[in-house]
Amino acid sequence: MLFLDINETDFDTRFAAILTRGEETSLQVTEVVRGIIKDIRSSGDDALLEYTNRFDRLGLADAAGLEITAAEIEAAVAAVPADDLAALQLAVERVARFHEKQKQQTWLSTEESDILLGQKVTPLNRVGIYVPGGKASYPSSVIMNAVPAKVAGVREIIMVCPTPGNEINPAVLAAAKLAGVDRIFRVGGAQAVAALAYGTASIPKVDKITGPGNIYVATAKQLVFGQVGIDMIAGPSEILVINDGTGNPAHIAADLLSQAEHDELASSILITTDRGFGEKVAAEVERQLALLSRESIARASWDKFGAVIVAGSLAEAAAFSNRIAPEHLELAVADPFGLLPLIDNAGAIFMGHWTPEAAGDYLAGPNHTLPTGGTARFFSPLSVDDFVKKSSIISFSEQGLKRLGDRIVQIAGLEGLEAHARSVSLRLEESK
Amino acid sequence: MLFLDINETDFDTRFAAILTRGEETSLQVTEVVRGIIKDIRSSGDDALLEYTNRFDRLGLADAAGLEITAAEIEAAVAAVPADDLAALQLAVERVARFHEKQKQQTWLSTEESDILLGQKVTPLNRVGIYVPGGKASYPSSVIMNAVPAKVAGVREIIMVCPTPGNEINPAVLAAAKLAGVDRIFRVGGAQAVAALAYGTASIPKVDKITGPGNIYVATAKQLVFGQVGIDMIAGPSEILVINDGTGNPAHIAADLLSQAEHDELASSILITTDRGFGEKVAAEVERQLALLSRESIARASWDKFGAVIVAGSLAEAAAFSNRIAPEHLELAVADPFGLLPLIDNAGAIFMGHWTPEAAGDYLAGPNHTLPTGGTARFFSPLSVDDFVKKSSIISFSEQGLKRLGDRIVQIAGLEGLEAHARSVSLRLEESK
Repeated sequence: MLFLDINETDFDTRFAAILTRGEETSLQVTEVVRGIIKDIRSSGDDALLEYTNRFDRLGLADAAGLEITAAEIEAAVAAVPADDLAALQLAVERVARFHEKQKQQTWLSTEESDILLGQKVTPLNRVGIYVPGGKASYPSSVIMNAVPAKVAGVREIIMVCPTPGNEINPAVLAAAKLAGVDRIFRVGGAQAVAALAYGTASIPKVDKITGPGNIYVATAKQLVFGQVGIDMIAGPSEILVINDGTGNPAHIAADLLSQAEHDELASSILITTDRGFGEKVAAEVERQLALLSRESIARASWDKFGAVIVAGSLAEAAAFSNRIAPEHLELAVADPFGLLPLIDNAGAIFMGHWTPEAAGDYLAGPNHTLPTGGTARFFSPLSVDDFVKKSSIISFSEQGLKRLGDRIVQIAGLEGLEAHARSVSLRLEESK
Repeated sequence: MLFLDINETDFDTRFAAILTRGEETSLQVTEVVRGIIKDIRSSGDDALLEYTNRFDRLGLADAAGLEITAAEIEAAVAAVPADDLAALQLAVERVARFHEKQKQQTWLSTEESDILLGQKVTPLNRVGIYVPGGKASYPSSVIMNAVPAKVAGVREIIMVCPTPGNEINPAVLAAAKLAGVDRIFRVGGAQAVAALAYGTASIPKVDKITGPGNIYVATAKQLVFGQVGIDMIAGPSEILVINDGTGNPAHIAADLLSQAEHDELASSILITTDRGFGEKVAAEVERQLALLSRESIARASWDKFGAVIVAGSLAEAAAFSNRIAPEHLELAVADPFGLLPLIDNAGAIFMGHWTPEAAGDYLAGPNHTLPTGGTARFFSPLSVDDFVKKSSIISFSEQGLKRLGDRIVQIAGLEGLEAHARSVSLRLEESK
């Protein structure tokens, strides 16, 4: 863990390791993934079945076995305690209610009497949701991907989730059912992404793929981008806490560890205007680390990518935060709304001392799929916007074309595009 | 040119060549571009200068010469006839007025008294606009990329435009000035994209890169995606006209050719419920082709990727259009608004007989940067949305955390994330 003053002369140098912790995809991984995509495109289900049996240690005889049946889903739902189902249902409802507010309407401007202009908003037809398998198979990931798609009006939601050793978390299947997923396939990795992007006999081709995954999944998503839409390129995740010396150091320490326990590459940073507070948080982190069952992961993350930074002012802390563009930003200060206008780049902003990051991870309502690794400079949280597309609407009347036609012909001429000009001038001639 | 009935049994087979005309980026191009990006990252301005001098046949002595000066821009503006400046100014104003309507506000929901939830909308800080050089250097491209950025509130707009043989279209520089571009560099190709994505001593690093370009530019944009945002992956462009036998065949022919004159890979398709009308359009295309100075390009496009298709009904035509997901869709029918609800996938929709595609290319208001090659299934026109990003706002009061905290702890437990649970339970204990 680094304990630094932001105004030390070598701050940037010492901090650089944290900023660049996201490994770039190696050419080797890219080549492997490219090969898998090629196989799926050329051999479809045969390749998908072979990769799935091999990587997930399954013994499926044919492609029909790739789909998880309604009976299997019902059995999983029955296996989840009723009180856990109620918690997941609450999450689905609250996430749906928040995302409803993101819906945009088709609009048409009538401010010119002779030209109507507008924008049509249309749900995507079919989307694919990637849900990791094994230990990191979380019901909340299902909810955060499927609910916005459902709210957007997507006609069919296809979920893929690998089942290594034929195991799957029943809560994941229950969440899929509660969130409105239409079909589920027991496939994962680059082969699942390729199957969704290009379609196979058993897996329908989708318009967009969302959801987290390992480096093979992320690389596959990047390679199929353009063939289908994707949500974002995910990197290692992080939390940044801005503090003004108010609040409880034990709470802040717990928040930092809630990020660190995810992943050894996760980064947890406190920037405070109060050195003494920072020291107390550092001590609390050490104390709480020992209590965690995921201690080794959290400790590796904290040791290597944790930091406590002392800033001269909250404005300085906000400027630092904007440079980091953190996935999760806690404004653990007395007046968080006063600080909000200074925040340019962040995935989600957690306001004040009663809003730990975990409050946003499951059921506050906003999405937990957030831009990581500094990409909050330009990416947004997953939202209903990801599951619709827009079409411009342009409607000229005869009068409208007469009013603007000469200028259109003029610019077409300026660009040397005669046929463009003629398509307008022919109509203007007829209109005379 | 294909003349087909949509219900012929071999329709799909015969039509397939048009659908798959977009060549995939070859591994060779990818390797070249990867090498250029690597050079720019490791050698910055030195590499940029060397590539620029080599590819654009310039003799710049140092990196300072990469920027186009204010004096050069003023000279270009002075060289453009006043009436052309007026036409470009009209385009800037109308495009700005349309894009103003796309602006979204930061919102905060107060429907729960103990939990505030919202979404902050923040302009990107700095963006890069790629404008092709040479013959396809169009002032309208500058306007369509820069104006939405400006309307969004982007703080700094950097334009790059190669100047092969040291030539640049003065109208392009004038458009940049009118549209509010802040700085312009005479660089292009993959090296320009890499410089914008990673920054060099002279070119500032941006948050997002938009704008059209050749296969090297498109490949570079795909490879830097994630490091920066990009607008979309552009492929060959197309127009689809849906017709019901009404209107003037000469007009429709002109519209088809306005797409064909762009590029030999462009595709122009008419689908009509009236075979006789289709035959007249085909004859008109032949007649008008001979009148074009860009005849050879337009003829190559029409011969190879042009089509006239006879459909049984407008509903059938709309379903076909949704499969194609055309960049430009003309509803050249008597009742275009009646047909609009059937249209799911299209970049821009041109309504009725007085709205040729060219009406939308310059100054109607909507953007002419549109999803191509079937990607309107999931991509949207370039818009203000491309130049902002969002951050979720989550603000729990003590009462709010007490109300939902147990459920948060429960789901964290379900996912095996102890530190997540503790960050909430520690606060609940204190609150008792």
